[in-house]
Amino acid sequence: MVTTPLLRLVFVADLAGTFLFALQGALIAVRAGLDPVGMLVLAFSTALVGGLIRDVLIGALPPVAIKDWRLASTAFLAAALVYLFGSHALRLPMLPIIVLDAAALGLFAVAGTIKAHGAGVNGLAAALLGTVTGVGGGVVRDMLLARVPLILHSEIYATAAFAGAVLVVIGLRLRLPLALVALAGGTVCFVIRLLAVWQGWSLPKVPY
Amino acid sequence: MVTTPLLRLVFVADLAGTFLFALQGALIAVRAGLDPVGMLVLAFSTALVGGLIRDVLIGALPPVAIKDWRLASTAFLAAALVYLFGSHALRLPMLPIIVLDAAALGLFAVAGTIKAHGAGVNGLAAALLGTVTGVGGGVVRDMLLARVPLILHSEIYATAAFAGAVLVVIGLRLRLPLALVALAGGTVCFVIRLLAVWQGWSLPKVPY
Amino acid sequence: MVTTPLLRLVFVADLAGTFLFALQGALIAVRAGLDPVGMLVLAFSTALVGGLIRDVLIGALPPVAIKDWRLASTAFLAAALVYLFGSHALRLPMLPIIVLDAAALGLFAVAGTIKAHGAGVNGLAAALLGTVTGVGGGVVRDMLLARVPLILHSEIYATAAFAGAVLVVIGLRLRLPLALVALAGGTVCFVIRLLAVWQGWSLPKVPY
Repeated sequence: MVTTPLLRLVFVADLAGTFLFALQGALIAVRAGLDPVGMLVLAFSTALVGGLIRDVLIGALPPVAIKDWRLASTAFLAAALVYLFGSHALRLPMLPIIVLDAAALGLFAVAGTIKAHGAGVNGLAAALLGTVTGVGGGVVRDMLLARVPLILHSEIYATAAFAGAVLVVIGLRLRLPLALVALAGGTVCFVIRLLAVWQGWSLPKVPY
Repeated sequence: MVTTPLLRLVFVADLAGTFLFALQGALIAVRAGLDPVGMLVLAFSTALVGGLIRDVLIGALPPVAIKDWRLASTAFLAAALVYLFGSHALRLPMLPIIVLDAAALGLFAVAGTIKAHGAGVNGLAAALLGTVTGVGGGVVRDMLLARVPLILHSEIYATAAFAGAVLVVIGLRLRLPLALVALAGGTVCFVIRLLAVWQGWSLPKVPY
Repeated sequence: MVTTPLLRLVFVADLAGTFLFALQGALIAVRAGLDPVGMLVLAFSTALVGGLIRDVLIGALPPVAIKDWRLASTAFLAAALVYLFGSHALRLPMLPIIVLDAAALGLFAVAGTIKAHGAGVNGLAAALLGTVTGVGGGVVRDMLLARVPLILHSEIYATAAFAGAVLVVIGLRLRLPLALVALAGGTVCFVIRLLAVWQGWSLPKVPY
């Protein structure tokens, strides 16, 4: 059974992940020369559009990113902080950002997979929608910047999210305890992502 | 109470706004070197995709842009006129276009906010979805052209729509008469937009 | 009446079309320098996102591309084959690909129109959604590559799909036998597309 304190913990973690992804989106907006509207849009996109696409596709309308004002507010707060602290924000140290980002990726992928699975889609779709929850916002952000999304050509990022998502689907099918399944999936995503950054891994391309 | 003549007026205004936005989309398609298919797609996108996204997100499916054939037909008619009048259309005077565009923006933002609010989403979401109704089509049009959407980096445009949308939400919450609320919201959007163009305002960016 | 063997035939044809479109998406991903994740995403987009957009807009959620794991699996299989056969895959002969692509376009446009019409939208919307089923995936693929979608500026492609879709709508309205209507619509799309490639037709642009 999912206990209330656990649910509250998940919600706080969700807000924290939203804040962190939004922070990155706003920073990227500044570097791209966008104005405050662009910062708000990129913060929202990066943090919330992955889950929004998932909710549209499973028919959970309106999406939670629309229904719960705390999510959008958190994203906009992150953009406002980047705006207020300006060039200081651009000098944030990389290492903690990468570590926190990997944690947020794992969290989003796991939570997205569990939600999609609960909506009754098949296992492959649940894992794909979990991955979309983690990486979809960044893809739309890059499309708004007229750039080929980073995850399509370099780094192990979507792959880490998908690995965690697959583990969650397997765990759910085996009816293992939810907390255990979530922890295992998130950890696998987190570890693969950090190992990939640390070792400079990337997927082998087809020679052309 | 909303009277039938008022509803009819709103519908006519909606068609007029659709026509004007579609005209702009088709003109931008010509300037970008697109063919007639591109003109139709950009006319449809500019005029109708903002409302279409709003309808998807509030679960009003199929979206009104799909359900009511008069909307798509109006957009395609605008594209056809641009095609027929070719280079003449490209020399349309700027000033009336800017004024009419500001009016259509106000209309779309207000109507979108009222519809989203009526679907039961929270106030922040209603204002955001109203803004999306006004500016979302232009964003998708710019994405189709592989350009960074104009509203993300310059001009006061989404800001004007959002200001009008917020006023509408406040008015609806205070249970003020709908016609008054709509008029006030649309006027605020219209005036802010025109003042911004006239004075060359733009939002202050974060120095980088 | 639709017989079961006919339905099975349609399903097999659908999988074949999915496979072919996915193959093209994966090849384009390789040429664009994407990694395996990009190949999977472009294969899925090209083959399945058109129908996915249709399903979202008619409210058939989750979309069949999510609900039926065989569709996504077929798209990923095509990407895997391109990956395994690498540079050989890039030297596939053009002619059969163009012919098969035209056949798949007709199939998708016809099947999409019939499904949208069955969902109760008006005739114009059904034809547009059928066209989106055929060409929408390629549009999103091009947007992911930060390119202006090919169908917006050259070739007779969406036009062929729309012509076939319109014929299907007319046939359905006249209550002609479904198999006949589908065959006629698909053939018209197929023939127009091949004639256009063969003769180098394109739509006349507005001179600028």
